Amino acid sequence: MSFDTISFLSDFGVSDESVGVTKSVIWSIAPTVRIVDITHGIDAHDVRAGGLALARAANYLLPGVVLGVIDPGTGSDRKPVCIEVGAGQSYLVGPDNGLFAPAVGMVGGATNAWVLDNPDFHIEGIGSTFAGRDVFAPVAAHLTRGVPPERLGTPIDPALLLPGVLPVAQLNDDGRIEAEVLWIDRFGNVQLNVDPDDVAGWPAVRIEADKLERAALPVHTYAAVTTGSIGILADASGLLSLAVDRGSAADELRLMEGDQLKLSRTEVPGRQVAVKLGATKENPER
Amino acid sequence: MSFDTISFLSDFGVSDESVGVTKSVIWSIAPTVRIVDITHGIDAHDVRAGGLALARAANYLLPGVVLGVIDPGTGSDRKPVCIEVGAGQSYLVGPDNGLFAPAVGMVGGATNAWVLDNPDFHIEGIGSTFAGRDVFAPVAAHLTRGVPPERLGTPIDPALLLPGVLPVAQLNDDGRIEAEVLWIDRFGNVQLNVDPDDVAGWPAVRIEADKLERAALPVHTYAAVTTGSIGILADASGLLSLAVDRGSAADELRLMEGDQLKLSRTEVPGRQVAVKLGATKENPER
Amino acid sequence: MSFDTISFLSDFGVSDESVGVTKSVIWSIAPTVRIVDITHGIDAHDVRAGGLALARAANYLLPGVVLGVIDPGTGSDRKPVCIEVGAGQSYLVGPDNGLFAPAVGMVGGATNAWVLDNPDFHIEGIGSTFAGRDVFAPVAAHLTRGVPPERLGTPIDPALLLPGVLPVAQLNDDGRIEAEVLWIDRFGNVQLNVDPDDVAGWPAVRIEADKLERAALPVHTYAAVTTGSIGILADASGLLSLAVDRGSAADELRLMEGDQLKLSRTEVPGRQVAVKLGATKENPER
Repeated sequence: MSFDTISFLSDFGVSDESVGVTKSVIWSIAPTVRIVDITHGIDAHDVRAGGLALARAANYLLPGVVLGVIDPGTGSDRKPVCIEVGAGQSYLVGPDNGLFAPAVGMVGGATNAWVLDNPDFHIEGIGSTFAGRDVFAPVAAHLTRGVPPERLGTPIDPALLLPGVLPVAQLNDDGRIEAEVLWIDRFGNVQLNVDPDDVAGWPAVRIEADKLERAALPVHTYAAVTTGSIGILADASGLLSLAVDRGSAADELRLMEGDQLKLSRTEVPGRQVAVKLGATKENPER
Repeated sequence: MSFDTISFLSDFGVSDESVGVTKSVIWSIAPTVRIVDITHGIDAHDVRAGGLALARAANYLLPGVVLGVIDPGTGSDRKPVCIEVGAGQSYLVGPDNGLFAPAVGMVGGATNAWVLDNPDFHIEGIGSTFAGRDVFAPVAAHLTRGVPPERLGTPIDPALLLPGVLPVAQLNDDGRIEAEVLWIDRFGNVQLNVDPDDVAGWPAVRIEADKLERAALPVHTYAAVTTGSIGILADASGLLSLAVDRGSAADELRLMEGDQLKLSRTEVPGRQVAVKLGATKENPER
Repeated sequence: MSFDTISFLSDFGVSDESVGVTKSVIWSIAPTVRIVDITHGIDAHDVRAGGLALARAANYLLPGVVLGVIDPGTGSDRKPVCIEVGAGQSYLVGPDNGLFAPAVGMVGGATNAWVLDNPDFHIEGIGSTFAGRDVFAPVAAHLTRGVPPERLGTPIDPALLLPGVLPVAQLNDDGRIEAEVLWIDRFGNVQLNVDPDDVAGWPAVRIEADKLERAALPVHTYAAVTTGSIGILADASGLLSLAVDRGSAADELRLMEGDQLKLSRTEVPGRQVAVKLGATKENPER
């Protein structure tokens, strides 16, 4: 089985030659494969952020090979692995450090895995410190050309792969949801690990964090957040996010990735709705 | 009619998976199309800057589809549109918020336009907040495969599209040109909305802005700007730009995009030219 | 002879349309060529950093054309050139300002060179300030299509090309190595212009710089650097690098690119090794 596509995520950044060199290695082995850059802008060594980005992307990626290189332990004894999902629909290649765990979980779990201990499919790079270039890239390239994963190394029970640490929101006895900030996007929207269904029908959501207590108003789109208020909506990943009107909710609320907060049902604070004497089709949030 | 190329501009940045996911959606529909990244580094929600970048690029883009997504109103009632230019030479797909207006103006205006209200050519994305992924990308992909734009939605009179706000320089009664800073490039050069012909033959150009008055010397290349002086030249977009010697003119002059300034003819200040007793072929600016 | 690939390095950044426009020009001439972005994130006008990045990448690049545009003298009388290496295996196209010198040196020197003074293979761009778009990109594209380099312009003796300034480490009479910081990578690792063989067998390496004196412990991988210590290792370019445990050695040591330092042999400071009463296979650094 061969593949057309390698989807590539890393923390290499784009200010030096690392991404270009890695792609050159891939194309030297698999000249016609398409490489889709998922992103190379994950913060250096931030395995958690990379794993979440892969999970957000997972439903949209093309079938084929996913090359994921966020590898603080490069060259150490952390295992280089190839993980099969969908019984062969896709293969994920990279370090066994939890990077792939959220995405693998989202697509139904691993069906097989191998430790990449066959050097026949690596390149003789300079130094022993850049497994992305010397191990993972050539292995990904060979996979797209139809090399069976069994030849790449020794099988390993997928249950032995390092799990990812994906925080799960909890419902407390007092009815409050204990949540965590998963991600601050480029626009400053604050993604929480909370299913929008969990707050369905709430007139407003009280947000409590360290030194913070605010009410957020449910909306359907970022554009519907009114000036001065905090909006809460189902975002493009299907999770709850906090937003402000054309600004950064993260800055406004002083929230960072990993911060803990509590959500509870509340009434709309100080909201006065003028009595209307006829039917209206207006969107009440606007 | 089908196309080989989608030229893609956005404010998504490259630090998360948004660009990679959007491209994956495109290639899932149009597997062989080439995607040219114009840039994804436009400041978040900066429709003006994105429109100017598209206009600067317009003369060089390959025929085909331009996908432009700077969309603060994503999911709101701003119209998603497809704009035809050159009677079918190219199609621009994105929000109707003025983003395309400068580029469309540069290439002779729109010949047709459609509101993208046919969901058959969208994808069922998660949430209702990411039109770039769920509406614009799939529509752009289908266009390259030969889907006629008439099938994408309802025709709209191009005259009803939101105009862009492109500031026009003005000549005052006192002979001064009222100009605006269009763009600060990566090197700190300050692009103005002024045609170089408007200052042709001036020995020097007086620049007046808030708390600033300086004389700029006409040059032909950045390299010809002498240390300590301000150069003024026709830049690679065919507009007047201010530059300093291997530094940032924007920093030196404390100018930002959108700043207003006045240009007027002046003599070269304190410039002493030694009398030469013979012909010289030297470039007088160097 | 034609080529499949253009490897492209510049200081254009990715926040405006420069890279996209340059690629559009290339593909308008050579529609099927593959463009590999080495990087566009070199600091503006930093010819030294660009040259070092090209040299680090050189061993991995695909055969073909290298387009390198870091060109503070664009439009001036610095020469636009095409440099042949490997008697025709690859061609480097860009300004003659030393940018290519380190890479050319690494692959055995130039076998031929030409000044790009034939405007038939340039495009008529706007302004005279963007040689990357108007001269280098179209020339690179034509080369991949089989235009012989002789037609691009006038031959020039490769010995007349501007040399690069690649600092060479020196061994002092007192046994100390005088070194220079070549590069700080994204992770803060500090690459020196020193061959790892020059410190082979040293129990520890004393690092002296302006207001700095520290001992670095030899390791084989970044992961083997212990908390609180400075590690010194052969990096992925085959040069000595300084590293700290999941942090920035550059920040910790306050070192910047171009800084001078001295290396000398020293004993491991205050290191106590427990007596072992049997054989061990443990890595002594871990």
